[in-house]
Amino acid sequence: MSLSYRAPVADYAFLLRHVFAVDDVDDSLAALTAAARFFEQDIAPTNAAGDAAGCRFENGRVRVPDLFHPAYAALCAAGWQSTQDETGLPGVTHLAIKEFLAASNMALGLYVTLTSGARTVIRRTGAGWMQTHVVPRMASGDWCGTMCLTEPHCGTDLRRMTTRAEPRPDGSFAITGTKIFITGGDQDLTDNIMHLVLAKLPDDAGAYHDDISTVALFLVPRWQIDPETGQMGAENAMSTGGIETKMGIRGSATCTLRFDGATGYRLGASRATADSGAASRAANMSGMFDMMNTARLGTGLQAVALTERAVQNAADYARDRLAGQALDPADRGAGGADPIICHPDIRRVLLGMSAFAEGGRALVAWAGRLLQDQEPGVAHGPLVGALLTPVIKAYLSDRGSDALGAAMQVWGGHGFITETGIEQLVRDARILQLYEGANGVQAHDLVTRKLRLGQGAAFASLLAEIRAEARAGARCLGLGPQVAALARAADLLEQAGTGLMAGQGYDLAGAAADFLTMTGHTVLALMWLKSARAALGAQGDLDPALVQRKRILARYWFERELPKTEYLGAVVALTAQGLMDLPAQAV
Amino acid sequence: MSLSYRAPVADYAFLLRHVFAVDDVDDSLAALTAAARFFEQDIAPTNAAGDAAGCRFENGRVRVPDLFHPAYAALCAAGWQSTQDETGLPGVTHLAIKEFLAASNMALGLYVTLTSGARTVIRRTGAGWMQTHVVPRMASGDWCGTMCLTEPHCGTDLRRMTTRAEPRPDGSFAITGTKIFITGGDQDLTDNIMHLVLAKLPDDAGAYHDDISTVALFLVPRWQIDPETGQMGAENAMSTGGIETKMGIRGSATCTLRFDGATGYRLGASRATADSGAASRAANMSGMFDMMNTARLGTGLQAVALTERAVQNAADYARDRLAGQALDPADRGAGGADPIICHPDIRRVLLGMSAFAEGGRALVAWAGRLLQDQEPGVAHGPLVGALLTPVIKAYLSDRGSDALGAAMQVWGGHGFITETGIEQLVRDARILQLYEGANGVQAHDLVTRKLRLGQGAAFASLLAEIRAEARAGARCLGLGPQVAALARAADLLEQAGTGLMAGQGYDLAGAAADFLTMTGHTVLALMWLKSARAALGAQGDLDPALVQRKRILARYWFERELPKTEYLGAVVALTAQGLMDLPAQAV
Repeated sequence: MSLSYRAPVADYAFLLRHVFAVDDVDDSLAALTAAARFFEQDIAPTNAAGDAAGCRFENGRVRVPDLFHPAYAALCAAGWQSTQDETGLPGVTHLAIKEFLAASNMALGLYVTLTSGARTVIRRTGAGWMQTHVVPRMASGDWCGTMCLTEPHCGTDLRRMTTRAEPRPDGSFAITGTKIFITGGDQDLTDNIMHLVLAKLPDDAGAYHDDISTVALFLVPRWQIDPETGQMGAENAMSTGGIETKMGIRGSATCTLRFDGATGYRLGASRATADSGAASRAANMSGMFDMMNTARLGTGLQAVALTERAVQNAADYARDRLAGQALDPADRGAGGADPIICHPDIRRVLLGMSAFAEGGRALVAWAGRLLQDQEPGVAHGPLVGALLTPVIKAYLSDRGSDALGAAMQVWGGHGFITETGIEQLVRDARILQLYEGANGVQAHDLVTRKLRLGQGAAFASLLAEIRAEARAGARCLGLGPQVAALARAADLLEQAGTGLMAGQGYDLAGAAADFLTMTGHTVLALMWLKSARAALGAQGDLDPALVQRKRILARYWFERELPKTEYLGAVVALTAQGLMDLPAQAV
Repeated sequence: MSLSYRAPVADYAFLLRHVFAVDDVDDSLAALTAAARFFEQDIAPTNAAGDAAGCRFENGRVRVPDLFHPAYAALCAAGWQSTQDETGLPGVTHLAIKEFLAASNMALGLYVTLTSGARTVIRRTGAGWMQTHVVPRMASGDWCGTMCLTEPHCGTDLRRMTTRAEPRPDGSFAITGTKIFITGGDQDLTDNIMHLVLAKLPDDAGAYHDDISTVALFLVPRWQIDPETGQMGAENAMSTGGIETKMGIRGSATCTLRFDGATGYRLGASRATADSGAASRAANMSGMFDMMNTARLGTGLQAVALTERAVQNAADYARDRLAGQALDPADRGAGGADPIICHPDIRRVLLGMSAFAEGGRALVAWAGRLLQDQEPGVAHGPLVGALLTPVIKAYLSDRGSDALGAAMQVWGGHGFITETGIEQLVRDARILQLYEGANGVQAHDLVTRKLRLGQGAAFASLLAEIRAEARAGARCLGLGPQVAALARAADLLEQAGTGLMAGQGYDLAGAAADFLTMTGHTVLALMWLKSARAALGAQGDLDPALVQRKRILARYWFERELPKTEYLGAVVALTAQGLMDLPAQAV
């Protein structure tokens, strides 16, 4: 009775061809069709068993669920761990594969996506010997990679890190400190692990300071590598302190790592990224910021992936489970009870999930294209992509948890039972709101930095794009109500954002989360108008069922989600007085 | 690092004395003070260990977590399993004890509250021998009780039940069928278990029908009881089929029970309840409906209980954890980092949780008083209480899950770790939206039955009470904005409810969930105006910190929650066309 999975190839084909008008998608569609078969058949069935088995910490080392070994090997043999740099396929196609991976087995997928993120950083910022001896072995999947940031006493506040990087005469560094919550920080899938570690450099007198400009990024292999030959040597001076017992993603090892003077190699500055605010604050960490931004988009995509799998199964269950009778006698079957999908409240839940998943998918794809400067119609595309990054991370993970919670309701009490499978997705999805920067931190980043990118040019460009889409929609039959609503939403968002750009201190910070949500509702409406317009515009070429679906889901979003921006706009305009008046001790 | 608990005695004292003006509360306060000490010290520490241990199914019988045995014995020895009928204390005081129980260990608490519900049914509907031989042993805690309703193929749709009750010449019945999801359906805490079982009576020809009027309620002891002497005999013809592995409440055994011609005794009709619609539809099940309605209020209270424990711990953590600096330099401490409670977004989350928990607590208490006809100022009090019952069940459990999710964010990544403790509350709370009738069913009950109680008199009385409170608030200094907002909310609710009373079919059902949420936001605002008015009116007698707290939390609710009713009112007015247009096969 565990959850099935059907990879949404047709929706990606629609995005590639009709929403983003990507040229020459034959290779993409061939890749997606092959990927779909692989992830549906070979990976999706491993998800529940991986959760049940979990990771073990034995004799100082981590063992992943046994069945992850053949699954990981098959995945690498088929090449599904490859990055866009490696295949040359469009970014949207790569997002699709990442979605299929996350939906089929998010815990297993984390070993793969962390590795591809880490090797992209090494490729961009690493020394020549790393390009020769490290990157290829990560690309093949023989070695994995991680990102080591959080320490027991600090996560977001990197100033307070205590991990030290002591320079050695040979140009390497001795890394000392403890990192926690390291995803895939240890495992028995690969025979070496490349850790990207944030650590502080000393001043000339050898002292370390609470100063973010002293933080730099280092490659610390679990087993030493000879830079000359690439040969693996002794274990580095580090150890695995343990793994966490946690709510979900139990097949993904969340590790404590202790670095005891481990040999590390400094990584250079990345080529400029769109996240110029952050990069200029800490050029030493630019590689890490690259990786974190990619991971933040990936987090939003994971929320879409789990929602997609959940809604497919919830709809199947609702078509199968009998209870009550259809309220319209014309819809009643011959038996005494009808499938629960005949009840409007069940439809409401299912349509809401699909409108979120398909709109969210379009949003991640669009942001990816903006960041790669592939949307020439949008001014300052990479800056708009950077502005959307915290929204995608936080809004999609918040709404994804909501959607999965709604899915569970479709099963009634059966949803609470492990065997049904949905409760695992609910638990797994919960990490998305927490890792890669908790959602409150994303909201703070949005209002204090991203909203101001390019002196407000990014935000202005986003508003212009929303209004342009409303104008384009106005030329399309049947989208009148949506066009007017989107234009109104642009006005509300402009008002709220302009107010925040003039705001500061507690008022600004207190409005951050609601502004992020408001932005999310609005940009998903933008995606839905784009999608409905693309579907109606290509009716001749498309399956009529797909056109109908996009039209109805767009209507859902505009009728039932976008109107929340009126309320949110009013809340964003509040001062923080009502939040701060109660003394901290009395809260 | 597991979660602490401080029972909210002061808030109940405020409710008893000032909001509900209960006379002579000395006995109540003495009971609450003693209960608080007991649950804080003896029960709260068992919660995490009970979750870790879980229940086991061994040799056909269930074993609860070992540490539940001394905890249950201590609870019964102290008398905290007593019902209101047994102690004569006010209803609000009993709710308080139920809240403390649920907050300290919800899984353990379910054995107790199900038993008190079952014995209330037996007391009201059972034969004389049951009053002599069964009720006292349940009151002492020597025997537990359950409610057996759900079957593998049907939950809500009782018409489709297949469990049969075959009359025997001696007046007893042979009960045959399978029941699932039976909370405490088997355990090793007590040496007998009293099952209340819904089963169908045959017609004169011995045939069973899909007709709800044939469903009746039976007492089926696990071990036979001699009605003459009360002596326990052989095991009844029934067995435990197994227990469920589930997302949360792992210390509570969720059982499959097989009845194979088990001896059952029919229970009579209950005295009329406020739930007249349901009672007239199925007089045979009126005892069960009594129990279910009590359980539905109890479910809302459990959501309040878990939220209360979560916010206490989240606030403690936020006062302790350092990250970033206060945005107002005047609030900065000497070190380089301040406690995260200095950040407005953290305050927003914590205030939102408290506003929900304290408002929800007041609502459950008020509804309890209405159902017992103890609010003479409210016309048709018991009907208004019945109208509020599905709102309390669904709205409080939905918002409780939201609040617990928000609490988890306060811990960041640490929230996802089992050791922290919050993730258990999130998992445990998730059942509240599902059991005692999934929340979609509650919404359907609200719009199709409860809204129409007394030909609309219940709804009219609720609106009149909201408007009366707004008028009363207008005479109280400083509540001006809230008064206006509450009056506006009453208009919106009236408009939405009046529309639904005229509505039918899919349009009605499609609007149910949003109308329920809208009602919930509004009645919590009513509770907040009542609370703020009571606090301001008794300033001389009250701790100034409590007055300030109630004023600020009321402001929070009116500024940040009640405005959602504008949006919801618009959505309730939509037709279901947008939900039903997509064919069932394409959803």
